[in-house]
Amino acid sequence: MRPLRLGVAGLGTVGVGVVDMLRRHRDLLVSRCGRGIDIVAVGARDRGRDRGVDLSPYRWIDDARAMADDPGIDVVVELIGGEEGVARDLVMASVGAGRHVVTANKALLAVHGTEIAAAADAAGVHVGYEAAVAGGVPIVKALREGLAGNAVRRVYGILNGTSNYIMTAMRDSGAPFDDMLAEAQRLGYAEADPALDIGGGDAAHKLAILAAVAFRRPVDLDGVHVEGVEAIAPMDIAYAREFGYRIKLLAIAQKGEHGVEQRVHPCMVPLDGPIAPVDGVFNAVVVEGDFAGAVSLVGRGAGAGPTASAVVADVVDIARGARLPMFNVPASELAASPGASIERRHGAYYIRLMVIDRPGVIADISAILRDGAISVGSLLQRGRDPGETVPVVMTTHEADEAAMRGALGRIAALDSVTEPPMTVRIEQL
Amino acid sequence: MRPLRLGVAGLGTVGVGVVDMLRRHRDLLVSRCGRGIDIVAVGARDRGRDRGVDLSPYRWIDDARAMADDPGIDVVVELIGGEEGVARDLVMASVGAGRHVVTANKALLAVHGTEIAAAADAAGVHVGYEAAVAGGVPIVKALREGLAGNAVRRVYGILNGTSNYIMTAMRDSGAPFDDMLAEAQRLGYAEADPALDIGGGDAAHKLAILAAVAFRRPVDLDGVHVEGVEAIAPMDIAYAREFGYRIKLLAIAQKGEHGVEQRVHPCMVPLDGPIAPVDGVFNAVVVEGDFAGAVSLVGRGAGAGPTASAVVADVVDIARGARLPMFNVPASELAASPGASIERRHGAYYIRLMVIDRPGVIADISAILRDGAISVGSLLQRGRDPGETVPVVMTTHEADEAAMRGALGRIAALDSVTEPPMTVRIEQL
Repeated sequence: MRPLRLGVAGLGTVGVGVVDMLRRHRDLLVSRCGRGIDIVAVGARDRGRDRGVDLSPYRWIDDARAMADDPGIDVVVELIGGEEGVARDLVMASVGAGRHVVTANKALLAVHGTEIAAAADAAGVHVGYEAAVAGGVPIVKALREGLAGNAVRRVYGILNGTSNYIMTAMRDSGAPFDDMLAEAQRLGYAEADPALDIGGGDAAHKLAILAAVAFRRPVDLDGVHVEGVEAIAPMDIAYAREFGYRIKLLAIAQKGEHGVEQRVHPCMVPLDGPIAPVDGVFNAVVVEGDFAGAVSLVGRGAGAGPTASAVVADVVDIARGARLPMFNVPASELAASPGASIERRHGAYYIRLMVIDRPGVIADISAILRDGAISVGSLLQRGRDPGETVPVVMTTHEADEAAMRGALGRIAALDSVTEPPMTVRIEQL
Repeated sequence: MRPLRLGVAGLGTVGVGVVDMLRRHRDLLVSRCGRGIDIVAVGARDRGRDRGVDLSPYRWIDDARAMADDPGIDVVVELIGGEEGVARDLVMASVGAGRHVVTANKALLAVHGTEIAAAADAAGVHVGYEAAVAGGVPIVKALREGLAGNAVRRVYGILNGTSNYIMTAMRDSGAPFDDMLAEAQRLGYAEADPALDIGGGDAAHKLAILAAVAFRRPVDLDGVHVEGVEAIAPMDIAYAREFGYRIKLLAIAQKGEHGVEQRVHPCMVPLDGPIAPVDGVFNAVVVEGDFAGAVSLVGRGAGAGPTASAVVADVVDIARGARLPMFNVPASELAASPGASIERRHGAYYIRLMVIDRPGVIADISAILRDGAISVGSLLQRGRDPGETVPVVMTTHEADEAAMRGALGRIAALDSVTEPPMTVRIEQL
């Protein structure tokens, strides 16, 4: 069979990793695919930059969009990034022209995924995006193929390595968020503008993609409730430990009686569950299937090697003839089933209040919670300091998010409460 | 596209699970595959038995071997088991007749896998065996497809849920092996004849299959060094805890300077690694790829639901058109690279000696170890009891297995050593 011809658009660390991997494992891949995989063209904005890899064997294309109409290219590998602009133009034009696409672009898919899927169905091409979710962890393949016989009840996990690194580093060092963010930036684990990572937006992109695959619905980024980890204080991490939990930024999609819930926010998870031990820049995803039960995948969620591994796996699939619908069923069969608002969440909560230490404060707070039918599990108040501000920390039994929000609003309005209440949802995951 | 027609041979719990899953998720599977999946025929030894599922819609075939030549069947699902006899005849005849096969039969593949792969290549059919390794965990797919771009350095894990259940139960209860085996049998986690599970043979079957996929070699069951967990005593588990380890039956295949090592034996693994927390009947597999790094998959390794999930995933692959070489490359390209003997292992060891508590014993043992260039990391001797037999427990620094065996032989010959030395290899996994 003739070789599969690739155009690689975008030559950042991942693009260079893909070139390196395809070159280094050329013979192995011929053996595994029954045909060669040839890079024929590459393109990026800056031709002059030294990328540490010899690009002279490949045709250079200044405007990556030209790859879409290039008859010498079978598969366009989009590693440019961004939900609009060149990346979107290139992917849509490539699909439209009957070219297969492999992309690592989670933002693009989270915003335009359903439209791309419909175009891919119409053109009969394969759009691979394993690299868009959880880096080197083959979760799209596991969900779409390995567990294809299951109805999925829930898919959840740690989908942002930057946030997980910071939470881990805060726990290990006791240092505040800003310091550990700066360290993550020094180590290359966080970008100069970290908003998308620490604010939960990146995890939301990935969750929206996984939820579409799992629940047969159009990609619904707007339906994802998003909170980041910026507000987590060292004392919250210390209290979590005392209560037997760790704090993780989790992304959770699940089917419940009110519809499909999609949410990204810090969670306290029990120390003995599958999520708590996943530290540092690692990602973890758990799929709960009705026949398979819970299946967990853990690995590196970012970096040149792991991301290249996922890109090349998609290329191998195409070389071997895979032609699957992007979100596991044809785009025309993605049904906009109802989404459940975060207000519908029913679960336990951790609450930290900063209060002025004076008589009656706890009584006032307790009365508000009681009136909201919220029952307290544990309550900690340490280091009494009459007249000064001290933390009061509690965990609740299961309660409705709507009731909790109402109660917290009333608590925040108390004279003796000096800061907005800090809450972290507790998930038995 | 016309429906894919299955013949299901073997109607134990897994076979019934497959029938149940295909029936319950019929519409979902039509949506995911773009065609129906129809069971057209079933067969088992005893037609009369009530299996709790309505089999009347399907043609009954008394001799499963007849499915191989049945023009109404596209895929033969072999759930009979056993490395010879009907299962082998059925699989070989089906492949020979151009029928796709899905099997959960690890023993068959561990013994005849290479031959089946060659026949499948010749006939151009797909032989799926996800269910043969780690039950509901899609490890074959992850290794063969999700990580297809990687050269694999090592693949290892917990591949036998029965042994893992017993190790976990011994740790939790402090009870001896035989009691926990009996409990596992009561709970249905161990078979009446548990030899294959607790002796490591079952894990060896699975490891031989994974190693073929990972290292592009013919399936080499004879090359697997196998030890079971029968000799692990409660005190070994307690000492492991003191040293910061847990004992797990691990299956490890790795490429080293002396060739491909394949071994199944109890290991002590550090408490903070990915393997230690995997308890009870769960399986875990870690693949180390040169680009992806370590990727772990954890889930239920047995049972009707998880195994049916894996079988149906393979059927879905076939329905969607997958035609992959069984062991990731054509059978003709599986190269018999050298295997490394267990004597070549280089690593740390836990040693427990039962010795008569009298002066000079430790000096004798220490001298033998020193002469073998084996250096001791920690040594514990508790509960002195002059003249009586007491345990002396130590961990070593890294040493060669061959040297260790020589030293242990000399130690065992000492008058003051009353039982054969107990050793557990320590792996930093």
